[in-house]
Amino acid sequence: MEYVRDGAEIYRRSFATIRAEADLSGLPEDVSRVVVRMIHACGMVDLVEDVRFSPGVVTAARKALLDGAPILCDAEMVASGVTRTRLPAANDVVCTLRDPSVPGLAAEIGNTRSAAAMDLWGDRLGGAVVAIGNAPTALFRLLEMVTAGAPRPAAVIGIPVGFIGAAESKEALAESGLEFLIVRGRRGGSAITAAAVNALASEAE
Amino acid sequence: MEYVRDGAEIYRRSFATIRAEADLSGLPEDVSRVVVRMIHACGMVDLVEDVRFSPGVVTAARKALLDGAPILCDAEMVASGVTRTRLPAANDVVCTLRDPSVPGLAAEIGNTRSAAAMDLWGDRLGGAVVAIGNAPTALFRLLEMVTAGAPRPAAVIGIPVGFIGAAESKEALAESGLEFLIVRGRRGGSAITAAAVNALASEAE
Repeated sequence: MEYVRDGAEIYRRSFATIRAEADLSGLPEDVSRVVVRMIHACGMVDLVEDVRFSPGVVTAARKALLDGAPILCDAEMVASGVTRTRLPAANDVVCTLRDPSVPGLAAEIGNTRSAAAMDLWGDRLGGAVVAIGNAPTALFRLLEMVTAGAPRPAAVIGIPVGFIGAAESKEALAESGLEFLIVRGRRGGSAITAAAVNALASEAE
Repeated sequence: MEYVRDGAEIYRRSFATIRAEADLSGLPEDVSRVVVRMIHACGMVDLVEDVRFSPGVVTAARKALLDGAPILCDAEMVASGVTRTRLPAANDVVCTLRDPSVPGLAAEIGNTRSAAAMDLWGDRLGGAVVAIGNAPTALFRLLEMVTAGAPRPAAVIGIPVGFIGAAESKEALAESGLEFLIVRGRRGGSAITAAAVNALASEAE
């Protein structure tokens, strides 16, 4: 069978295709690099049309990661997609969803397990890079926690996916005053979110 | 903040929205159930337009899983997305990509690590459910292995994503004679692939 077998060459051609087809002209250079990897993870060059961000998000996330901040994820798939060798400070990648206390905690607070799991982040939240790629309820809960006085993360990559609450939770993040990166609407997910984190973690392509 | 906090209710409303908006009329009932979960994982109801499958794929995959077949994944994210509690026979979920022998093997065969990792599946391939959600080279390599006489899997969920080889590898799978489920074109990825496996594993919504 005829196909490209060289991983580096596949990356090079993929990124070249994305840069040729996606309209990145409205993006600052640092965000553009992140969006290229997000597009790479989903195969859709029109994703760029739905990307919104705060101007300082890449700088804030980069600085936090260089300083050793943890990456707090709402889903195991997001954590699993973070390439450990790209992390600049052997940063912790945390997902508390499978902690045995989570189902009880969820019943107690009357919310999903994804939302309840974040209560276990504790004081790791302050200055962290938060990566929410699955559950809108996790993003809503994060915003409630910060409004209630929880320590503020350095940046929030908020790209939950789906039909109930995803679009609304991302709009709420964009209005929260936190440093943020979102994909408006229903699209999103763990692969796009992990790709954004991987781009923030290292400038290597 | 106002949002739905009940996980079961979120699922119910999500699936109702998908069934109201997606044109599932061309699909047999068993495939339709799988496609609903795939759409749920990516937020795009038009995904259905690109889904192709062999008529027996759901029956073949279900039977294999009930009989205890392993699920062989090309990427850790796919394996991570398989909900273990949905599996009917505590099926093994296997990803060999991080095996220490893989980089050397890749250099030896002149292919990507994703492709080389599959050589470690060994005789688990016969009768397995294969879930490829990331690397086109893994899917191409699988087809080469089967053509060369490797044991045939029971079904192949082949939904790699991206710009170089993804579309072509999926078309090659569709012409291979194996039981298959694909998403034509560039779209795909680990979340959609894991969702398909989760739908095949259990009829519970």
